[in-house]
Amino acid sequence: MAKDFPTREENYSQWYNDLVIKADLAESSAVRGCMVIKPYGYSIWEKMQAALDKMFKETGHQNAYFPLFIPKSFFNREANHVEGFAKECAVVTHYRLKNSPDGKGIEVDEDAKLEEELIVRPTSETIIWDTYKKWIQSYRDLPILINQWANVVRWEMRTRLFLRTTEFLWQEGHTAHETKEEAIKETEQMLNIYAEFAENWMAIPVLKGTKSPNERFAGAIETYCIEALMQDGKALQAGTSHFLGQNFAKAFDVKFLSKENKLEYVWATSWGVSTRLMGAIIMAHSDDKGLVLPPKLAPIQVAIVPIYRKEEQLEQITEKVKPIIEALTKRGIRVKYDDRNTYKPGWKFSEYEFKGVPVRMAIGPRDLENNTVEIARRDTLEKDILQITDIDLKIEHLLEKIQDNLYQKALSFREDNTFKVDTWDEFKKVVEKGGFILAHWDGTAETEQKIKDETKATIRAIPLNEYFEEGKCILTGKPSKQRVYFAKAY
Amino acid sequence: MAKDFPTREENYSQWYNDLVIKADLAESSAVRGCMVIKPYGYSIWEKMQAALDKMFKETGHQNAYFPLFIPKSFFNREANHVEGFAKECAVVTHYRLKNSPDGKGIEVDEDAKLEEELIVRPTSETIIWDTYKKWIQSYRDLPILINQWANVVRWEMRTRLFLRTTEFLWQEGHTAHETKEEAIKETEQMLNIYAEFAENWMAIPVLKGTKSPNERFAGAIETYCIEALMQDGKALQAGTSHFLGQNFAKAFDVKFLSKENKLEYVWATSWGVSTRLMGAIIMAHSDDKGLVLPPKLAPIQVAIVPIYRKEEQLEQITEKVKPIIEALTKRGIRVKYDDRNTYKPGWKFSEYEFKGVPVRMAIGPRDLENNTVEIARRDTLEKDILQITDIDLKIEHLLEKIQDNLYQKALSFREDNTFKVDTWDEFKKVVEKGGFILAHWDGTAETEQKIKDETKATIRAIPLNEYFEEGKCILTGKPSKQRVYFAKAY
Repeated sequence: MAKDFPTREENYSQWYNDLVIKADLAESSAVRGCMVIKPYGYSIWEKMQAALDKMFKETGHQNAYFPLFIPKSFFNREANHVEGFAKECAVVTHYRLKNSPDGKGIEVDEDAKLEEELIVRPTSETIIWDTYKKWIQSYRDLPILINQWANVVRWEMRTRLFLRTTEFLWQEGHTAHETKEEAIKETEQMLNIYAEFAENWMAIPVLKGTKSPNERFAGAIETYCIEALMQDGKALQAGTSHFLGQNFAKAFDVKFLSKENKLEYVWATSWGVSTRLMGAIIMAHSDDKGLVLPPKLAPIQVAIVPIYRKEEQLEQITEKVKPIIEALTKRGIRVKYDDRNTYKPGWKFSEYEFKGVPVRMAIGPRDLENNTVEIARRDTLEKDILQITDIDLKIEHLLEKIQDNLYQKALSFREDNTFKVDTWDEFKKVVEKGGFILAHWDGTAETEQKIKDETKATIRAIPLNEYFEEGKCILTGKPSKQRVYFAKAY
Repeated sequence: MAKDFPTREENYSQWYNDLVIKADLAESSAVRGCMVIKPYGYSIWEKMQAALDKMFKETGHQNAYFPLFIPKSFFNREANHVEGFAKECAVVTHYRLKNSPDGKGIEVDEDAKLEEELIVRPTSETIIWDTYKKWIQSYRDLPILINQWANVVRWEMRTRLFLRTTEFLWQEGHTAHETKEEAIKETEQMLNIYAEFAENWMAIPVLKGTKSPNERFAGAIETYCIEALMQDGKALQAGTSHFLGQNFAKAFDVKFLSKENKLEYVWATSWGVSTRLMGAIIMAHSDDKGLVLPPKLAPIQVAIVPIYRKEEQLEQITEKVKPIIEALTKRGIRVKYDDRNTYKPGWKFSEYEFKGVPVRMAIGPRDLENNTVEIARRDTLEKDILQITDIDLKIEHLLEKIQDNLYQKALSFREDNTFKVDTWDEFKKVVEKGGFILAHWDGTAETEQKIKDETKATIRAIPLNEYFEEGKCILTGKPSKQRVYFAKAY
């Protein structure tokens, strides 16, 4: 097969793009900035969805669906929100086309102009809080714990497959609570669920923290986030959970009668992760031979390739493989037996290697004699000959081992690339190398902006309960009580 | 609780609307024609999705995702398609808003006008076939068997919750094949899957057939459909599967090198069902007391209500109920134990009745003494006292019985309301009563249109392999070789 693409060292950005396209994960479409998610890529996303959806439901959330379109005026209601979201977006102005006078095409029917333009949702706080107003009268109606799986549109000028696309898929949770405390608890709970998902399913260690005001969600009081480190030393925001205070309740006039019989504004949270996670999973683990997928999210976990010359050998191998497939499937392991005669084993080997299949199993005539199979691990590229006895158990353990190894490798990488820095000169030097920098910051937006202007690094996260110590701001020398994480980011 | 809503007899249309809203399935939103699907309604849709998705995958289909937006010019490529779909649709003309000069709001930024307008997809054949062009070169690339779960928008003038909304959720399958025969086989296979789903999951019997040219999908050679009968005697199209021939391949120039080394146009199908099925399920089974849901799709299959005066009685009941819940859950039965002390048992009874929960289980102090529970069936409203021994098995059987009963009831209703009619006078009379009419038709679009104009009835389906007999057209008296199904329809 031998896909032609650069190494990470040669051109990280091109390496990423080629991997996405050549491994059949996604591609650009005819519509600027919008991607087509291909079956192999979508299958990974489905597995992410299933795992997250289960975690959401186990914590009492229900799914629902709100309209794609939002009346323009809704954005105006929350002052910060309108600044952040109502600018670069797709605007629906008409609801009909008609035949062109020349008879050769269709054109917008100017008689079908909307009285008020509709915005294709960039996020759904406004339309949802307009709805919650109808649902909430009393404390008995609270909490509302709703999630939505949906597509959203943000008119991005520079797009990259999965990382930043005009349309993307995501989930957005929107909850309503009686008290501030309960809402903050919810915000933190969802952050922890995201972190758990990133670490246990995607095999990516994440930092947890809050955002500085500059990086906060437009309309939030506090934005919590998880941040992951990619192999090129850049950080990637992998999920956010927002404590919205009473901002949206006030904007949409959503009050409830409390247990104490007082009319109070409702407290809100929102939280989301998107198909951006696909970008994270690709960049965190893959290598110069192609994709490396964590077993828990891999569409194919084991690819079985028969090695044969004659048709009768294939038949014998297929007979031998049947109970293996059955036993693996019974354990919930996703197996593909590739007996296509249109491709040679070597081609198949590199295909599965390139597509990041965690385990490849090869079986040929000699294996039949010895009751063995050849196993190749995608993560370490190690090969081994295994007896077929209990092969399902062995493979199950191997998949767990691979999942764990990927996580440990990513964790070591992050640890090796997290630096405590105390002088501005060193900061500038380390930023160039990449990685997380733990440094003191004076707490002002101006300083953060100056640091960004000079180095492109931003504050990725303010640690939740760590790194409290007296220090001096890396840029201004003003006093600081906590180190924060800086990095260049996607 | 005692929801206030008319009976079916009094006002069927209002009955339907009230049920949808008061049973918390869906409601209208601030955006004209767009609905909010509430958690209880969405949970039914999720169960439909899961069942269908499994059937699609078992027949070799994979999910993928294509862009929400379609360039206007794409619609022009297929002559019939543009007539059918590119008219009443949401048109995106701009990609930015800006602050109004008066500083009080935001307005469309005229500098951000798109060169070519984008249409919010009403269906995705065009964008998908534009993509398939890149994927298909040789017969080795075929078949492509892809499905997409997505939202679509059709600018409907008169909307009704679930039945006809501007935005709705659906799945759309789009497949590409080497031969005509294979594509037709696929079209028929998917029709059969839809019929199986309607009958086994929704407990709704359906007619299978093809559409007359008048009712055919714009761009299809043949449209297959399943049609169900609602309690008011109107038909509802519950799913369609289209044989598209080479129309879209020609429109988007998608050719493949065949095994015989010839360049040929690819053969296509597309097929879809939507949240309209929610409307069908409500209208097919529900009664004047509220929703009646088929157990296989009910969010809650068994609601357990404790009957008690004193707190210690509740504790005893809860102790008794615990192993019941466990045993039911183990069998995959969805149970809700409603021990809220804010509502009385009578209120809960009518709540679950109204929401169509198939089985209600009540347990009070006397039941504790006798080791019994009281069971009420939603479909027949019958009550029974059952010994707790093996209660999980008994409930499992009861749910199966209810599922089957709903289907049989709907089937009897359809049989009682399907009429062979041979004269125009009788036709006009029977149409008024409602139901399916099996009558002869001369095969012309003009006659179908005349019948529609006079009676509002349309041809719902041309039976696949039935009702072949010599006869005379019900309107024109011209010769006909097959009876077709007429009905007034949603």
